[in-house]
Amino acid sequence: MKSDIQIAQKANLKHISEVAKKLSIPEEDLEYYGKYKAKLSDELWEKIKDRPDGKLILVTAINPTPAGEGKTTTTIGLGQALGKMNIKSVVALREPSLGPCFGIKGGAAGGGYAQVVPMEDLNLHFTGDFHAVTSANNLLAAMLDNHIHQGNELNIDPNQIVWKRCVDINDRVLRNIVVGLGRKADGVVREDHFVITVASEIMAVLCLAENMEDLKERLGRIVVAYTYDGKPVFAKDLKAVGAMAALLKDAMKPNLIQTLENTPAIVHGGPFANIAHGCNSIRATKMALKLADVVVTEAGFGADLGAEKFLNIKCRAAGIKPDAVVLVATIRALKYNGGIPKTEFSAENLDALKKGIVNLEKHIENVQKFGIPVVVALNRFMTDTPAEIDFVRHFCEERNCEFSLCEVWEKGGKGGIDLAEKLLKTMEEKQSNYKPLYDLNLPIKEKIEIIAKEIYGAGKVTYDPAADSAIKKLEELGYGNLPICMAKNQYSLSDDPSKLGRPTGFTVNIREVYVSAGAGFVVAITGTMMTMPGLPKIPAAEKIDVDENGRIVGLF
Amino acid sequence: MKSDIQIAQKANLKHISEVAKKLSIPEEDLEYYGKYKAKLSDELWEKIKDRPDGKLILVTAINPTPAGEGKTTTTIGLGQALGKMNIKSVVALREPSLGPCFGIKGGAAGGGYAQVVPMEDLNLHFTGDFHAVTSANNLLAAMLDNHIHQGNELNIDPNQIVWKRCVDINDRVLRNIVVGLGRKADGVVREDHFVITVASEIMAVLCLAENMEDLKERLGRIVVAYTYDGKPVFAKDLKAVGAMAALLKDAMKPNLIQTLENTPAIVHGGPFANIAHGCNSIRATKMALKLADVVVTEAGFGADLGAEKFLNIKCRAAGIKPDAVVLVATIRALKYNGGIPKTEFSAENLDALKKGIVNLEKHIENVQKFGIPVVVALNRFMTDTPAEIDFVRHFCEERNCEFSLCEVWEKGGKGGIDLAEKLLKTMEEKQSNYKPLYDLNLPIKEKIEIIAKEIYGAGKVTYDPAADSAIKKLEELGYGNLPICMAKNQYSLSDDPSKLGRPTGFTVNIREVYVSAGAGFVVAITGTMMTMPGLPKIPAAEKIDVDENGRIVGLF
Repeated sequence: MKSDIQIAQKANLKHISEVAKKLSIPEEDLEYYGKYKAKLSDELWEKIKDRPDGKLILVTAINPTPAGEGKTTTTIGLGQALGKMNIKSVVALREPSLGPCFGIKGGAAGGGYAQVVPMEDLNLHFTGDFHAVTSANNLLAAMLDNHIHQGNELNIDPNQIVWKRCVDINDRVLRNIVVGLGRKADGVVREDHFVITVASEIMAVLCLAENMEDLKERLGRIVVAYTYDGKPVFAKDLKAVGAMAALLKDAMKPNLIQTLENTPAIVHGGPFANIAHGCNSIRATKMALKLADVVVTEAGFGADLGAEKFLNIKCRAAGIKPDAVVLVATIRALKYNGGIPKTEFSAENLDALKKGIVNLEKHIENVQKFGIPVVVALNRFMTDTPAEIDFVRHFCEERNCEFSLCEVWEKGGKGGIDLAEKLLKTMEEKQSNYKPLYDLNLPIKEKIEIIAKEIYGAGKVTYDPAADSAIKKLEELGYGNLPICMAKNQYSLSDDPSKLGRPTGFTVNIREVYVSAGAGFVVAITGTMMTMPGLPKIPAAEKIDVDENGRIVGLF
Repeated sequence: MKSDIQIAQKANLKHISEVAKKLSIPEEDLEYYGKYKAKLSDELWEKIKDRPDGKLILVTAINPTPAGEGKTTTTIGLGQALGKMNIKSVVALREPSLGPCFGIKGGAAGGGYAQVVPMEDLNLHFTGDFHAVTSANNLLAAMLDNHIHQGNELNIDPNQIVWKRCVDINDRVLRNIVVGLGRKADGVVREDHFVITVASEIMAVLCLAENMEDLKERLGRIVVAYTYDGKPVFAKDLKAVGAMAALLKDAMKPNLIQTLENTPAIVHGGPFANIAHGCNSIRATKMALKLADVVVTEAGFGADLGAEKFLNIKCRAAGIKPDAVVLVATIRALKYNGGIPKTEFSAENLDALKKGIVNLEKHIENVQKFGIPVVVALNRFMTDTPAEIDFVRHFCEERNCEFSLCEVWEKGGKGGIDLAEKLLKTMEEKQSNYKPLYDLNLPIKEKIEIIAKEIYGAGKVTYDPAADSAIKKLEELGYGNLPICMAKNQYSLSDDPSKLGRPTGFTVNIREVYVSAGAGFVVAITGTMMTMPGLPKIPAAEKIDVDENGRIVGLF
């Protein structure tokens, strides 16, 4: 069997200007990065902004196994299928993070015969957007510490600095550090922390900003610290906004690449799906909607995290709404939700499937709460049995929900034609009546409770004393009317990763609450959230190499 | 008066494919990064490698004032002048570091009417080469700490880790840090340090590597730590080489941009000129020599640092030799060397000039020791008086050394025609008999002493006990036959920045000695070397912005 990178390197890539032609993008609006990548110019938006929008499809998933369930693969394969059917389509994806690529995960550009290419570029530096975010993040940190070192006119309390440094590498020893040791000239000693680049608020800001003006406005209002008397200190107080904007100027432009079947793919931005909203950039999605008749996009993790934020945060900020949702499920994830261990995934087990399918049921209901029609895509694995597949099919049909067996990993676009047809039929027959789940003007706690009860199925929400007082403070500071960005594990609908299936009546505990004022949301953290991963015993990096022909090998 | 960025943004840029045509580079060998930047393909070298080399001119300088003396500006202006004279020429420069750009320095792409453009791109992310170096450096660090955390099979002593993390921002609080705090899962606690990216050994390796095979070889032999029993641990022991090479694959390719007058400029790499060798990449220089009849390149800081390393380290590694050296001087730097303060630079002062010109004299003699003809370029400032200029002219002529008054900052290529003519005349009349200053097989201390005595004018070299025992250990480990990379302040020929002019008989003290085994040199440090700068009270970053037309402003 061929590996993803072997398939990708055999792909018949077209020059990106050819791919752009499918969307009638004028050549002058392409900024090439080699032959197969281009940034889309700022001027392009001005030319197309008054066109009607295409259809928007959000791909999300049930609660996954730790290996993931092929959401990106399905998104790409669906785009390829639509392309095969001569429908003007675009896939709109997030950029992968460099860190996990060297850790457990390997590449993140789809898989099998449903990939975006060149996958090596996408998985490594791509067009440098993440490096720009890292630089802007760390410039702000350096200016903050420099301000304190140079006399601290703003009266910043070094014990109340909330801005963290970042790096796009899984590096656990940087989670908790002490900086500023040495002599007086080496700065002020304090505790500090690094997060991975995708967890930087700058990444969320980049993805939510409408344009350069809005970017600068958002960067300016980022809270970096508090003064000794508890007042927020903003990035604009450090006069850091202009330089950060200069660093992010090119990163603001969406990137165009292609799928294995030459379908246009706009890949841009990649905020974390726990402490941030986990979707590609607003500008990329809006541009895609003006360029294509059908746009397929995805949101991070399962529907309880990614789709909830897509629908409550991103859609609201961007003024967009999905016409349909594709909910990706796999037999093995349903069995995992039914309580069997990873080692038993390959054997037929209808009992486990029956037990675990309640997870799918809950996610179908959740999406329907937002008023959007759902199609279930079962991402087929070679070990799935006909009886298992039939069981899931009947389950969906009984719930008045289209079902499609999706084989894009094995067959590319051809394997997604059935899904594309079901989707088009659904959009023709069912109206999307999208509405967000909660009113922004509700108090913070009420908004948290709506998400926890309606989406997760919790019975009750409790708050650590620190979270309690943070909420009071944020409401006093005027942040009460922001949407909520919930940080929760992705394996369970609850805040306890071991509660699989469809748990009910559980208590969600909120441990920490803070504002991402630039992004424009209040983050509520359940359990312990990892914002800096570590490398495993044998990092994927050990297998990556450049061979004697100058080809990158070992990405998967 | 227009600022550098204002001049640059008014430039009449040609599409980079047009610039490439001047060097007959086939279009298929250009990898575009937007319209005005391109990387040169790996295949190009194969096509041109058997051509004869053009002439190589090294631009260096006397000991500068803290503001620098326009070495890069002269290099670029000279290239522009040669272009105006219809000579097929290329300027081969280093890439500027992002860190200083936000600190004191502003941009670093030449100045006035002698610049390389687009200067915003060059000063900010350019084609991402430095980000690739940062990523590779920090991946190695993460894999090292992960190795210890996962059981430390290699028996690495956390107190003898020599590999440091890096970031391309001036950030003094990262000079001395403690990492790995927190819980057991957060890694092993130890002292650590960040350096600025240009000080990473990876940067030096990138610039010295002949090709991908050599790059991997060099990366593999980097010493990252020592075991509890004092044995070196190499990057290859951590199985990090392949992934680092994959990260550096595109960064290995030289970048093509243009001057304000559309002269081709190959800009690639940028190692520090104190703890590293301070020149652009070997691949860029060698490629330029095959593409043009005259190549103008520069080395960092004054001739005692940059040129010495260019001639003893880079030329030896690359098998190249300069045909002539241009020594840049300014009236104000000569007066500074004559002992007057910065505030008095603008007033005519022949006494100070006479006192300081011995600095120029020493540098002329030094270059002649390598057997290379010298032309002195006096970089004209508006405050220079005719009497002062005449004095310098006569001084040079008396030493059988061509003199040129260089006005490229004010007039562009036109202001460098005289310099270009003097240079061509010199190369016609005088043969370059380049030879390195010392034999590699001498003991480390003898090589250090040759540099200190012959180039700096020292009477004696002393060694701290730690340096003494490090030298013994390095010779035992087989590193005795490497060239020496001296780290010294750039303001004085001695190791004391206050000893201006032409000090003699002084003692140079070596404080620290270590090996950069990947780069292939032994670093000898005099005094205290700063490998992580800090931001000033008012960082240049505060002035940088993106204006309402999407244009970057405030770089200078």
